[in-house]
Amino acid sequence: MSGFELESRLAADSVFIADGPLSQVRLMDDTRFPWLLLVPRVPGAAEWIDLDGSQQRLLLAELNRVSQLLRAEPGVEKLNIGALGNIVRQLHVHLVGRHAGDAAWPGPVWGSGPMQRFEADALQARAALWRSRLG
Amino acid sequence: MSGFELESRLAADSVFIADGPLSQVRLMDDTRFPWLLLVPRVPGAAEWIDLDGSQQRLLLAELNRVSQLLRAEPGVEKLNIGALGNIVRQLHVHLVGRHAGDAAWPGPVWGSGPMQRFEADALQARAALWRSRLG
Repeated sequence: MSGFELESRLAADSVFIADGPLSQVRLMDDTRFPWLLLVPRVPGAAEWIDLDGSQQRLLLAELNRVSQLLRAEPGVEKLNIGALGNIVRQLHVHLVGRHAGDAAWPGPVWGSGPMQRFEADALQARAALWRSRLG
Repeated sequence: MSGFELESRLAADSVFIADGPLSQVRLMDDTRFPWLLLVPRVPGAAEWIDLDGSQQRLLLAELNRVSQLLRAEPGVEKLNIGALGNIVRQLHVHLVGRHAGDAAWPGPVWGSGPMQRFEADALQARAALWRSRLG
C-alpha cells in the first residue's frame, strides 16, 4: 500500500515499534499509561468502516495480539480501546492499559491533560521491550 | 447465551433498540450526540478479547452496520468508537456521531459532563427511528 504517510502529530507523540500485517504499531510517549497505537497503512482511511473486510480482519488480529500483551503488563486491570480521530483524522486505534487510581481514572485518557513524556533513555528502553514482544 | 443480564447503569442510561446476532443495540438517552451502544449478550465479558473469534466477527459486523447508519445521520462528520468499561465493567462498545462544535468537541464524549436526557416523547421517537433502521 504505497502512499501511506504518518500524520505529523502521531509521529511526534509516539515511536515506531513494528509493522503488523496492516498497521504500524506505535508506543505513545506518555509515562502515565501503557499506551499503544495501531495505524493502518491505508492512505486516506479515517474511519474503521473505511477499511474493507480483509483489512478489518487484519486490524482485529493486531488488536487482539497487542491487547493480550497489554493485559499482561504489570498493573493493568482494564483495557481501553478507542478510535476517535477528532483531532488527527488519519485512522488510528488506541489501546491503553488502565488501573484504578491512574492519572485519568475512571475517565478516558484522551483529553486528560498534558502528556508526560519519557526521558530519552526510558523511551528507548520501553520501545525496545515492545519491539521484543512484537518482533 | 443464557445468563446475560444488562448492567443496571447501562439499562438506566439507554433504551433497547434491537437484538443483533451477538449484541443488544441500545440508544443512549442523551440529546447531545447520536450515540449507540453495542452490548454483547455474553455473560462475564468485560474486554473485546474476552470474545472468541466468531463472536468478534459478529461484533464487527454489527459495528459496521451501525456505523454506516450513524455516518448517514445529518450533521455527523466523524465517528468515535470506544470500549472503555472503567465504570461499567460489562463489555459495551460506544458508537458516537460527532461534529465540529458539538458539546464535547474535539474531546471525547466520555466524562464530558452530565447527560442531557430526552423528553419522553422525543426519546420514543428517536428509538422508533433507530428500530426502523435496524429492524
